[in-house]
Amino acid sequence: MRRVVVVGLGPAGLWSAISARVADSSAEVVVLSDEKYLTYSRCGLPFVIGGEIGSFEELVITSIDKLKSLRIQVFLESRVVDVDGDEVVYEHRGELHRIKFSSLVLATGSKPFIPPIPGIDAGGVYSLRTINDGVAISKASMKARRALVIGAGAIGLEVAEALAERGLEVTVAEIMPRVLPAILDGDMARILSQAIRSSGVNLMLNSRVEEIIGNPTVSSAVVGEVEVPCDLVVVATGVRPNVDLARKVGVSIGATGGIETDEFMRTSIEGIYAAGDCAETKHLVTGRPFTPFLGSVAYRQGKVAGANAAGSSLRFAGSLGSTVLRVFGFEVGFTGLTCEQAKGEGIRTVVGKVKWLTKAEYYPGAREIVVKLVFRADDGKLIGGQIVGGEAVAQRINLLAAAIACGMDAESIASIDTCYSPPVADAIEPITRAAEIALRKLRK
Amino acid sequence: MRRVVVVGLGPAGLWSAISARVADSSAEVVVLSDEKYLTYSRCGLPFVIGGEIGSFEELVITSIDKLKSLRIQVFLESRVVDVDGDEVVYEHRGELHRIKFSSLVLATGSKPFIPPIPGIDAGGVYSLRTINDGVAISKASMKARRALVIGAGAIGLEVAEALAERGLEVTVAEIMPRVLPAILDGDMARILSQAIRSSGVNLMLNSRVEEIIGNPTVSSAVVGEVEVPCDLVVVATGVRPNVDLARKVGVSIGATGGIETDEFMRTSIEGIYAAGDCAETKHLVTGRPFTPFLGSVAYRQGKVAGANAAGSSLRFAGSLGSTVLRVFGFEVGFTGLTCEQAKGEGIRTVVGKVKWLTKAEYYPGAREIVVKLVFRADDGKLIGGQIVGGEAVAQRINLLAAAIACGMDAESIASIDTCYSPPVADAIEPITRAAEIALRKLRK
Repeated sequence: MRRVVVVGLGPAGLWSAISARVADSSAEVVVLSDEKYLTYSRCGLPFVIGGEIGSFEELVITSIDKLKSLRIQVFLESRVVDVDGDEVVYEHRGELHRIKFSSLVLATGSKPFIPPIPGIDAGGVYSLRTINDGVAISKASMKARRALVIGAGAIGLEVAEALAERGLEVTVAEIMPRVLPAILDGDMARILSQAIRSSGVNLMLNSRVEEIIGNPTVSSAVVGEVEVPCDLVVVATGVRPNVDLARKVGVSIGATGGIETDEFMRTSIEGIYAAGDCAETKHLVTGRPFTPFLGSVAYRQGKVAGANAAGSSLRFAGSLGSTVLRVFGFEVGFTGLTCEQAKGEGIRTVVGKVKWLTKAEYYPGAREIVVKLVFRADDGKLIGGQIVGGEAVAQRINLLAAAIACGMDAESIASIDTCYSPPVADAIEPITRAAEIALRKLRK
Repeated sequence: MRRVVVVGLGPAGLWSAISARVADSSAEVVVLSDEKYLTYSRCGLPFVIGGEIGSFEELVITSIDKLKSLRIQVFLESRVVDVDGDEVVYEHRGELHRIKFSSLVLATGSKPFIPPIPGIDAGGVYSLRTINDGVAISKASMKARRALVIGAGAIGLEVAEALAERGLEVTVAEIMPRVLPAILDGDMARILSQAIRSSGVNLMLNSRVEEIIGNPTVSSAVVGEVEVPCDLVVVATGVRPNVDLARKVGVSIGATGGIETDEFMRTSIEGIYAAGDCAETKHLVTGRPFTPFLGSVAYRQGKVAGANAAGSSLRFAGSLGSTVLRVFGFEVGFTGLTCEQAKGEGIRTVVGKVKWLTKAEYYPGAREIVVKLVFRADDGKLIGGQIVGGEAVAQRINLLAAAIACGMDAESIASIDTCYSPPVADAIEPITRAAEIALRKLRK
């Protein structure tokens, strides 16, 4: 009988297990996780800190009963320390155990990247990855008055907003010249920066944190040449694939730092698969590996890895890094490549950009929305999109992701048969308008 | 010098004029309209009746100054009565005038279809097409207590909700066995019927209005075998292309009752174009002509017709009839073909349908959403979509419209790189899930 062992119970691990069960109803499916919680939404952590969600327990998205009904065995607080031939070696409450596997799925996720800042080991300095981190930050925020968030990526901004909602004075320090540098060009990021500053958060761009001061707990930080008083620091400078186990196992690690995988989510060792943040993914525009670190991708990869570990041969085509977040009154979305990223890839681009409204102009509650479409100059095909608006961004990003995957050009995007009704959409869809503008430039 | 004459100032007429101006900056552009208002949003009329929008004047979407700055001459309250060679003959305040044209755009719109019900000429019986109609219904609704709306299409339901919001007792009579029969299959329509009934509106399906009773003004109506007391009746049984002028001109009228057009929006007579509700459109799934009666289509057709009337050669590929509306707490959307319509076309279908949430389950305010995707059984390609949900329907419909236009199949739709963040979208996109379900059936 086949035994599929999955390491990790994030979305990639959970869906690997479910998918293995579906693919082979007679297989044994075992999941080992070093956490004490079942699968929970890491993306929801900032909203518990901010108070929108009542408790961290609400983030747990499955139950022992559900897993039991699927005949998935779960071992929590069980850290896999090695793989020895066809056996996984794991530690549970100080004791080592072994379990044989027919196939193995590595879904070990990622871990926060902690930059080598002097003093970063001080008390009061946190990163946000697990429920335990969330509990610690929540607790600290009750007593703290001034917070410094290092990094203006998605998590950094979400945490900054959450702490501001909790009444703290918040500074965000970002080393790059703009917020959300991985998903927005400067022109789009500026819309958000203004909103952040209007909200009272002190946003410092082009600003490196040189030192964290305070012993045993933080009292200030040197940001650029300014000393910023703070009694709570959240480090949100990105994550790295967690490949400690993968290295021990000996599967190939790619240039991105993630586990090399093919379209079947196979690693370099037969019978071993990888999925989620620990694995590399093919970028659907560049064709090269990247690590998107997205729950939505982890889910899809997990489904493929788990099914294939149980004998199927599903494919995962790749990702565009499609991202959405809601911060400081704006919904912000991205897919594909920004102009800057395209430039880095040596791709000449043509942009169509419009400021529009989310409903008919006369309908109450219409919000502004800025749509920026990035086309490849050579063939006029869409390669990226960025949207910052008051609402209705996520589904537009999904449309753009579909358009990129289909190889749609500006003309075909401009002719999408969009729908309209005053309370929910304008007669002229901003994506249509942005494509028309790009089309005019492309025809010159 | 070229003179482009446009008949009609709805969205098709307005955008024909603007587009002609852009295509040929030296052309004379003249618009003749029989209404006394500049272009306004007909789709917004129910929301003024309902009170969401303060006045009918707010629906006017352009201004004399703007048209002047574009050097577009507008003659209001000028009814075109004939075309005589290269001259348009119009009547203004009782006098006939003539104007020569180089090219002509017919954008005469549509008119309400009034079914031959005995008594339908009684006082208190209205249809809703113009601002004047809106004003009349608004005024009548102040004194009326019980309204009957004939027809449960988009306008019928929007008016029913508006009148209910105004405090009237409302009955909706629909001859078909479901609401929104042109865009929803029975299973999807039922979700909405329940909401309509819960709101207190009396919804009568499978119910023909046999007679309207009352002289001089309506006092009741016989609906099926029931006499329904009412002092206000709104007839919302659809519209027909307004081709009175087209017939006089002698351009070919198609089987749908609309003006025959090719992809350049040319009619059967050289130099005469047609756009908007009066014109036929190619259906992008069936390849056959249809008349979608949509402002969004009128806008796109107008742009093409106007530009081509001024010497360009743009193309309008066709439409999927993409529709969205917001009624009784639901956003309802459609594109392509329903199952029933596909059956009528002799197309075997496979359906993927899910009930899902619009945000992460644990996030406050997540609303239910039901997504139904219709695939062609032969090649697995998407041919239609219906969505009924609490929010975020319009942009999903646009995605499905793009997917149909691109020929996406269930597998490629299931692999769209969708985005996720708890406050705005679930980790698993319902469109993805619905495509996966269909894919499983298709593979059998």
